[in-house]
Order: sequence, then structure tokens, then C-alpha cells
Amino acid sequence: MRDASRTIKGCRALITGGLGMIGSSIAIKLVEQGAEVTLVDGCISPYGANEFNIEPIRDDVRVNMADIRDREAMKCLVRNQDVIFNLAGQVSHNDSMNDPNLDADINYIGHLNVLECVLRHNPDAVIMHAGSRLQYGQIESIPVAEDHPQRPRTPYALNKSAAENMYRFYHYMHGTRTIAFRIANPYGPRGQMAHSKYCMVNWFIRQAMDDGDIRIFGDGQQVRDYIFVDDLADAFIAAAFTDACVGEVFNVGSGSPTRFVEMVETVVDVVGSGQVQYIPWPEDYVNVETGDYVTDTGKLNGLTGWSAHIGFEEGVRQTVAYYKEHHRHYWQS
Amino acid sequence: MRDASRTIKGCRALITGGLGMIGSSIAIKLVEQGAEVTLVDGCISPYGANEFNIEPIRDDVRVNMADIRDREAMKCLVRNQDVIFNLAGQVSHNDSMNDPNLDADINYIGHLNVLECVLRHNPDAVIMHAGSRLQYGQIESIPVAEDHPQRPRTPYALNKSAAENMYRFYHYMHGTRTIAFRIANPYGPRGQMAHSKYCMVNWFIRQAMDDGDIRIFGDGQQVRDYIFVDDLADAFIAAAFTDACVGEVFNVGSGSPTRFVEMVETVVDVVGSGQVQYIPWPEDYVNVETGDYVTDTGKLNGLTGWSAHIGFEEGVRQTVAYYKEHHRHYWQS
Repeated sequence: MRDASRTIKGCRALITGGLGMIGSSIAIKLVEQGAEVTLVDGCISPYGANEFNIEPIRDDVRVNMADIRDREAMKCLVRNQDVIFNLAGQVSHNDSMNDPNLDADINYIGHLNVLECVLRHNPDAVIMHAGSRLQYGQIESIPVAEDHPQRPRTPYALNKSAAENMYRFYHYMHGTRTIAFRIANPYGPRGQMAHSKYCMVNWFIRQAMDDGDIRIFGDGQQVRDYIFVDDLADAFIAAAFTDACVGEVFNVGSGSPTRFVEMVETVVDVVGSGQVQYIPWPEDYVNVETGDYVTDTGKLNGLTGWSAHIGFEEGVRQTVAYYKEHHRHYWQS
Repeated sequence: MRDASRTIKGCRALITGGLGMIGSSIAIKLVEQGAEVTLVDGCISPYGANEFNIEPIRDDVRVNMADIRDREAMKCLVRNQDVIFNLAGQVSHNDSMNDPNLDADINYIGHLNVLECVLRHNPDAVIMHAGSRLQYGQIESIPVAEDHPQRPRTPYALNKSAAENMYRFYHYMHGTRTIAFRIANPYGPRGQMAHSKYCMVNWFIRQAMDDGDIRIFGDGQQVRDYIFVDDLADAFIAAAFTDACVGEVFNVGSGSPTRFVEMVETVVDVVGSGQVQYIPWPEDYVNVETGDYVTDTGKLNGLTGWSAHIGFEEGVRQTVAYYKEHHRHYWQS
């Protein structure tokens, strides 16, 4: 793995969605390594922005409230940045089905807006896109590499794909230094815990901590790839500071298969409370079930040396410890 | 070919982009066959809206000026329609590179808006999308069938692809009766003639009629598929009134290969004036050159019996005759 620490020290990084789970986790690591960090967040309810997420670095970063769809604000903010982690987004797969226009407006038009600002006002910056494993739609075989066919099946997945295609176009046509991730299922500290719309593992951790019922649809045998947010933040940083990653797209996940039912049992075991209930699949979920998913992390590992280090049980343990300590900052939205 | 005339008679059709070349051509045919037609047009300059296009049916149609991005207007307009030809769009490939946000806003968000209106206010309507052969990007082999790989390379092509994917999602998830076309190079009467931004054949016809210079980039050996607008209008109508087409995507073109240089020579011969100049490719054009293109029309032909009937020379002849008669309505924007 290329030692990027010299490059990170003193570099200027902009993180949109910077008050969210992933953005704040990247920010904390970058500040530790000496970067100058600006966080941008639109603070749209009920997405994951939480000012407490940056408590450890509150005095070390600049925070700028702004929506990525705001052309004039983004023009100013992208200037003089070395790396832009463009993580702002509408995050709920299900909400995208109820309001596909809003999803398109943020996850596609908003990202296109930032790309245009970078092209016109800071064309040498690296800009990273946070896409999703859902871009693949129905999975043919696991582990999933980047050349797996893409048949996105929800507005969320369609807009993530459309945005990624636009990033790649900017690289191809204008030489913009884009890097695109397709991320498995992230979880961990700093995720919102007030509702069940996204981050299933975090929501189950909350249910268990509240000694509530955790519902499993069907038999829970589907395989997922849960990636701890610290590992994911390391992946973003590794790619951003590795020149060979520019213009590329990467699948990012733990690389380890976990059955849904194992995930739930681990959560209940680690927390020490909560009950598991098995119920049939709701009809409207069946249509978007994609089959088993495990990430082939070979491409990113090959170029950066990065791999995930935190096993699922350890990740849940760290997550539970975080929320036990900071419960009151997360239990209400 | 299924005889759709009984179904067309008395049916209610909405055509967005209804004052443009393709929309007005469909409208004229539908009115002749007894449909009740409403035309919607945003009249955005310098796109192709021209009130003279509907001169023959002026008293037989309703014209409603509105932008497809206008949610409230579209809500009202889609109600009680049987078929919606959703043709409104930003039409210039090159302009999409200069202003990708505008292209995305009209060609993606605008179309998503109409889809949402149909889903919520008229879910049984058939709705058709006018996509482009450019969705394929670099062509691997001709003729091109619908399963040819898609690697769109400009914002125009990316947004057409993204919109088509959204149409297909609405069909898949909600049962919306979508039909998507990927159209080769259309030309013919009623196309705008005031500038060179789109419809190359029409522009060359104007240059020749003005006894001007027609510039060919490179050697002009690239193969294209030019489809006469009357044939294209027939294709739209055939698909819209064939139930088996619902949920499908079709390549639409003449199915006949024409070299660029042959196209130009035919134009100059038929018009009887104009001069051909050969010049090198401008650098910014080379990157989007896609290679030879000819449509495999087998899928649409198989389901509807439709095929193109007007050969290229005859199409140019009819086009020239139209503009000789109506020159003054088209030479200035």
C-alpha cells in the first residue's frame, strides 16, 4: 500500500455529506493525519447529518451548511480543494420509490452540479463518488467484480448508476480526476439511529439495545457484505491518494459473506438483549431483492493495498460501545 | 402489420414536443386517422418548435404551451389520454456538453416528471420515449440490435439512457405501459432549418438550397442510418397501438446504410446547387465519433409489421419540395 500520509498532511479536502456517518468518519481520519478539512452538509431531514458526529474534531474543521444543488455555493466551496469526497445524497432506497424526482434531483442533478463546478473552477481536484452495490441489481454470481452486469432496479440504484456514468464521462471527456465506489452495506458508529430507513445493521443494534423485536423477512438466508465504516473510510482515503485509482470504479466491501440471520444473531448476542421474529416478506420488498451479494475487493486491493480489517462481530462490538456512550445524541432525530 | 386504425379513431393522444418535427408529423397522421390530439410544447429557443408545422391540422388539435418539467401542468394534461408520445427534449448533442445540467433537467428530470404524473393520474396510458442511437456509444458491429452493449459517451446520450432506464423501471415496478425507441438519424419536412445544431441532413439541404458550402469532416466514409420523418412517425404510431410493444425497447431506423459522403452528394444532386468541401475533423468531434451505424429493425418489424418505406433519395426529394414551398416559415428562427 502506497504510504499516502505525506500527501494527506497539509492537503485540502472537501467532504459533502460531511456530517453523515461516512463523511464524518473520513473527516476524523483526515484531521488525524494533518489534512485541512471542510465539511459541507445540506442537513436535509431525515438524512444522517448529526453535528455530534464531528465532536472529536469540532475545532479542527470548517463546517459549511449548503446543498450540493446550490451552484453558487458549490462554485466557491470546490475552489482550492485537493480532494472532494462527494458523499451527499438521498440515502433511502425505499424513499426513492415514493419520490423518484427528489432522489434524481439530489443523487443525479446535485452530483452533476458539483462535477460542473469542479470542471470549471478546480479541474485538477480528485472527486470521489459514493455509489452502491444496488447498481448491479440482480446478482448472477458472487463475489461481485466491477464487470458484473448492471441492471439497476430502483430509482435510487438508477440514479446512482446515472451519476457514476456522468463521473466517468467527465473523466473521459474532460480528464476530470474522478474515482467511483460501489459500496456494499455499511454500518458502524455515527450512523443515524432515529428511524429504520437506512443502515439496517445500525437499526437492529438500536432495536436490540432497546430490548425490542427484530424482524427477519423470510428465512434470512440471503448473504450480504457488511462493511464497517472505519474500513470504508480507509478505502476512500486510500483511493483518493493513489493516482492509479483516478478514472476507475471500485467495488468496496468487507469481502466476507454474512447471512442475514447471522448478522441479526450477532447483533443480539453482542448487545445481550432484543428478540428475533421471523415474518414473511412484504410483497413490495420481494421485487427489489437482489440475491446474495459479496464484494470482490481485488481491484481496489491491487491498486492501493487496502483491505477491510474489522470482522463483523468486532465491528458490531465497537458500534454498540459507541452508542452506549453517546446514546442521547442519536436516539432522537 | 396489425390494423390499428380502428383503435386510433377516437383515441386521445398527447404529444409533448408536439410542435417539433417528429411530434407534428405524428400529430398530422393521427388527426387523419381520427384521433383527438393535444400538443404540448415548451417552445424553448432554439429547439424545433414551429407553429407552422401544424398548419394542416391547426383547427383540429388542441395546443397547450407547457414545459414537461411543470408538474402541475403535466398532471392536468396527462389525464384522460390513451397514448402519450413524450417527445419533448433538449435535442443538441453538442449543447449537452456545454450545459449538461440543462440537458439532464429536461431529458431526464422532465421525463421522470411526466412518468410520475402518468403513474399517479393516468396509470393505464401508453407512454413512449424517444431515445437515441447515441445511447450505444461506440458501435461494435452493424446492424445494431437492441442487445448491443451501451456505453453512452456524452451527457445527451447518458441522459437519454438514464431516462429510458427510468421508463423501464416504471414498467417493471408499477406496470406503467412504457415503450422506448432508440432512433437513428431522422430528417425530413418540419425540422428546424435556422441553425446547424441538429438534424444534419436538413441543415445540408438548407446549405444546398442557399447554394452554400457543405463541409465534410474527414473522408466522409462513416456509415449512418437516415430515417425519413414520415417513416419514423409511422413507427411511433405502430408501436403505440400494438399491445405487444408495451414494456419493450426498439431500435428504429431505415435499416439501410448510407455513407456520409453519399448523403451529401444526394442532397447536392437533388437540390441542384451547393458545393462540397472536405476538411479535417475538429478535435472535439473526434472523441464522440461512434463508428458506423445501421439499425437492425427486426424487433419492431416482427411485432408490428412496420418498416421504413421511403428511400433516402426520395426522402430528400420530399424534404426539398416541402422547404421550397414553405421556405419563409423555416429560414429564420
